[in-house]
Amino acid sequence: MEAKTIAIFGGDKRFLFCGGSLAQAGCNVLMFGFDQFKTTEHPLKEKLTLTNDCDLLTKADCVILPPQPIDADGCVAAPLNSKPLHLNQKIAEIIKNKKIFAGFEYVLKEHVPQLAQSDITDYPALEEFAVLNAVPSAEGAIGVAIENFEGTLHGAKCLVCGYGRIGKVLAADLSSLHAKVTVSARKPTDLALITAFGHTAIETSAIANGCDYDIIFNTIPRLIFDERTLKKTNPAALIIDLASKPGGVDFKAARKLNIDTIHALSLPGKTAPRAAGEIIATTILNCLNTQI
Amino acid sequence: MEAKTIAIFGGDKRFLFCGGSLAQAGCNVLMFGFDQFKTTEHPLKEKLTLTNDCDLLTKADCVILPPQPIDADGCVAAPLNSKPLHLNQKIAEIIKNKKIFAGFEYVLKEHVPQLAQSDITDYPALEEFAVLNAVPSAEGAIGVAIENFEGTLHGAKCLVCGYGRIGKVLAADLSSLHAKVTVSARKPTDLALITAFGHTAIETSAIANGCDYDIIFNTIPRLIFDERTLKKTNPAALIIDLASKPGGVDFKAARKLNIDTIHALSLPGKTAPRAAGEIIATTILNCLNTQI
Amino acid sequence: MEAKTIAIFGGDKRFLFCGGSLAQAGCNVLMFGFDQFKTTEHPLKEKLTLTNDCDLLTKADCVILPPQPIDADGCVAAPLNSKPLHLNQKIAEIIKNKKIFAGFEYVLKEHVPQLAQSDITDYPALEEFAVLNAVPSAEGAIGVAIENFEGTLHGAKCLVCGYGRIGKVLAADLSSLHAKVTVSARKPTDLALITAFGHTAIETSAIANGCDYDIIFNTIPRLIFDERTLKKTNPAALIIDLASKPGGVDFKAARKLNIDTIHALSLPGKTAPRAAGEIIATTILNCLNTQI
Amino acid sequence: MEAKTIAIFGGDKRFLFCGGSLAQAGCNVLMFGFDQFKTTEHPLKEKLTLTNDCDLLTKADCVILPPQPIDADGCVAAPLNSKPLHLNQKIAEIIKNKKIFAGFEYVLKEHVPQLAQSDITDYPALEEFAVLNAVPSAEGAIGVAIENFEGTLHGAKCLVCGYGRIGKVLAADLSSLHAKVTVSARKPTDLALITAFGHTAIETSAIANGCDYDIIFNTIPRLIFDERTLKKTNPAALIIDLASKPGGVDFKAARKLNIDTIHALSLPGKTAPRAAGEIIATTILNCLNTQI
Repeated sequence: MEAKTIAIFGGDKRFLFCGGSLAQAGCNVLMFGFDQFKTTEHPLKEKLTLTNDCDLLTKADCVILPPQPIDADGCVAAPLNSKPLHLNQKIAEIIKNKKIFAGFEYVLKEHVPQLAQSDITDYPALEEFAVLNAVPSAEGAIGVAIENFEGTLHGAKCLVCGYGRIGKVLAADLSSLHAKVTVSARKPTDLALITAFGHTAIETSAIANGCDYDIIFNTIPRLIFDERTLKKTNPAALIIDLASKPGGVDFKAARKLNIDTIHALSLPGKTAPRAAGEIIATTILNCLNTQI
Repeated sequence: MEAKTIAIFGGDKRFLFCGGSLAQAGCNVLMFGFDQFKTTEHPLKEKLTLTNDCDLLTKADCVILPPQPIDADGCVAAPLNSKPLHLNQKIAEIIKNKKIFAGFEYVLKEHVPQLAQSDITDYPALEEFAVLNAVPSAEGAIGVAIENFEGTLHGAKCLVCGYGRIGKVLAADLSSLHAKVTVSARKPTDLALITAFGHTAIETSAIANGCDYDIIFNTIPRLIFDERTLKKTNPAALIIDLASKPGGVDFKAARKLNIDTIHALSLPGKTAPRAAGEIIATTILNCLNTQI
Repeated sequence: MEAKTIAIFGGDKRFLFCGGSLAQAGCNVLMFGFDQFKTTEHPLKEKLTLTNDCDLLTKADCVILPPQPIDADGCVAAPLNSKPLHLNQKIAEIIKNKKIFAGFEYVLKEHVPQLAQSDITDYPALEEFAVLNAVPSAEGAIGVAIENFEGTLHGAKCLVCGYGRIGKVLAADLSSLHAKVTVSARKPTDLALITAFGHTAIETSAIANGCDYDIIFNTIPRLIFDERTLKKTNPAALIIDLASKPGGVDFKAARKLNIDTIHALSLPGKTAPRAAGEIIATTILNCLNTQI
Repeated sequence: MEAKTIAIFGGDKRFLFCGGSLAQAGCNVLMFGFDQFKTTEHPLKEKLTLTNDCDLLTKADCVILPPQPIDADGCVAAPLNSKPLHLNQKIAEIIKNKKIFAGFEYVLKEHVPQLAQSDITDYPALEEFAVLNAVPSAEGAIGVAIENFEGTLHGAKCLVCGYGRIGKVLAADLSSLHAKVTVSARKPTDLALITAFGHTAIETSAIANGCDYDIIFNTIPRLIFDERTLKKTNPAALIIDLASKPGGVDFKAARKLNIDTIHALSLPGKTAPRAAGEIIATTILNCLNTQI
């Protein structure tokens, strides 16, 4: 099989590692929107082409965009570029027949109508991607807890709300650091599985009756900690919300009640950019291989 | 709520513990088919009524039968009774309007046509039951491995085939005893989850290409280790098959190839009858509560 | 037994928690050197007396000083006080016949000659104190690694130099987060114990032959990573030195070689002040009880 | 270095594996007292010489005897030999100037006076040997518990008496299988270490005040569970005594009180003969290398 040429168009530090992984897997990698980054420092500098010359995009077999939606001005997130990175009409014309990997597909199509018919994969929404991201997300949450909780995780009463992918890995991590772990879920089989893995199980609905924990990790993307529930929550607790915006906590009410909260967003990108970048590369390579 | 009267009709040692748990939960428990068991020894003897007087069955709100199918003579498994325990026509008439818990429902209905219209719950087939049983099953498998493997689990290369309920708990147990654990699965998300939990993941189909492990645990209920695969398997391996009959191993071929195999059936009942009995009680109590 | 009166003279945030624990254990606690702290916020405010009136010291049965040595001006570390906290002659006269808990005993006696005959316990040097501190120290190290390492601990090749108290707990923590853990030690029985706990063991002297790890944690208080060893170390490694000053790494040479290093000092106090304070309280209460 | 010739004189199945390991390490291995074993089955058959011709002993650089003492008739334990294996005068003459590895040195010297001046290493008494054996011993204890306890280890209240080598590994194993683990010790630093590893710590002396556990593992080689203590012990508990004879339990009193006890002796040899044999080989090779 001939080597694929992959264009990375925008993105943060993770995408440098993503590009590195793709290059290591034998792809030619073109990186747009990284003019602030000195390739000379990169261990894979010979395999990555950093450029902002959009004509080179024609060479690409597929294009990777960052997971964030395009902004109101039609710009792609590109914090490592000196200037905003426009996904303008010319570029849209070039890439519209290529395989595109991007987050928030619907927003992309809306802002760049030329792409309406394109073959776009919403990679952050893929199950495999989410499972792989559970590890750096859980570790990031552990890091946030260690830094912000005044006691030790060892012996701390922890509640993990939700037993999805992150909940599973996070509960296992906390438990192995000798925290006392309770996990909430709704389905009876999840409650049984929580017990089988050695944690204490409670029904998510029971949280509203009050909860006495030292640290509460929320992974459920809907309002679990509303004002009423917060009033029944141990005021000395630290609440770490891992759910994406708007999150599962009424932060205003929490502030009023003097409960410490942290909205820990985009953890893998922040605490483990290399891992996060490698996971993007793995997911995309798996997509490409399956489709061939 | 008034106390429920529950009849246990047949079953092995597990059902003594099941009866104990039900009594402890406030039920009146009638136990049929246990005349070899001396109640005097049972810590809950005052709460259990051991009897073989079938007229008492009329008092029961519901009836629990063992998970095994009724045999060709219409008898229920009752190893703790001095005589075979018939589920005869008279009894069928008494219980046909009660809630019945039994395994292998279809067989039951076939052998006791009077029950064809009854409200029968196939409790061993319930997801919750299966998840709860994963813990004693996995521990039993660990016990079998310790007893039969000449080395230690610590450092042993172990393969767990299948990442269902038992596979998940077993892989975690082995890993925490410092075995080197590889798990096989088919779905990409399961493979990602296996990695997230710290194990090595392989596709189940790859097992046929040969496998070099010290201990192989099979949990998949179809023929994985046929003669061809066995020929590519490390001949010094110990294969422990946890799948119910006929199991996942061609035992005849294994014997010919001098590969040690163990078909470890009904593990929870054997190595942890109390746990197994409590799980039956929990499952049935949950069913009754949900239905009220 | 009558309630003991304990004076805490100086110290950081940890000592607020230490005071809280002592109060909860039934002691009267006088805290000197905390005038910047608003007692009203403290959950135990009624049990703690914050004061800078040294005459009150006469009431104390024993006096706790912070673990750091007295500085050249005769001042005790007191970051929560508005002014430097002198241990002047008058105070020395008051406390010289009391039981004193302090770090760096020899320095204390040198600077405050009146105390030369006093009954001083160097509590940070007590074995029990060191073992209890291993947990928050190891967790702090995990936190530092999560924050600074670009990959995940999961799957990272980690070296822990030294298998003392912190090494033991840290290696177990890392391993349970699915890092690949190698531990160095000198004694054959330690090497065997490292293996028994599921880690890979190497002799400390072998580190000088070069080491290929992603993260290196040093706990040995002598120069392990000198320039020669650093030259044979994976330049992409992150070295976290947990040994107290001057530490086990030639930081200057590391900078020259472009190897990332972090000298993570006083971890428990920083990342887990409550745990650290409770440990001081536990240690001191155990000392007082044993001596009665 | 020229290949060493090592004679194994007696011993059970472990010594077949021990011989195999020594052969694999490049030694010539002569095995005396295994005439019931068919070498043809042994994977290392070409490297092992099975013989009962004592003249060959002259070729040996060193001689390994089993850990058990020589019996009253001057015989060495040799369960895999068709006849008793005498260590007679002729043999004693041959080996008296060689390096000898044996257990219970004093007994050996007493029964075979010719060896009084010999260079004998009591290898089962070596610290390294004991630490390495802790892993198979702890696993064996886990196996015994799984087989004999009617519930699951998961959730069981377990007491480990003693925090020596086996206690450390056993407590970690139990805890990782989700048992609720309490460990007893005498020294304050051990109690702190027990806590640091996430277990509950109690003083050994407190056991006599009564103990409410599901499973009790004793590793302390003195009478801990005397009649008085047993009377205060949960009668439903299972006591597994891992201490060598006479053990730490008054077994007669336990029987009278109807408490289940198991004296689990020589576990590594029984449940993990290969591991046990490899450990003997490792220990002896380390001794030989250090001494050269």
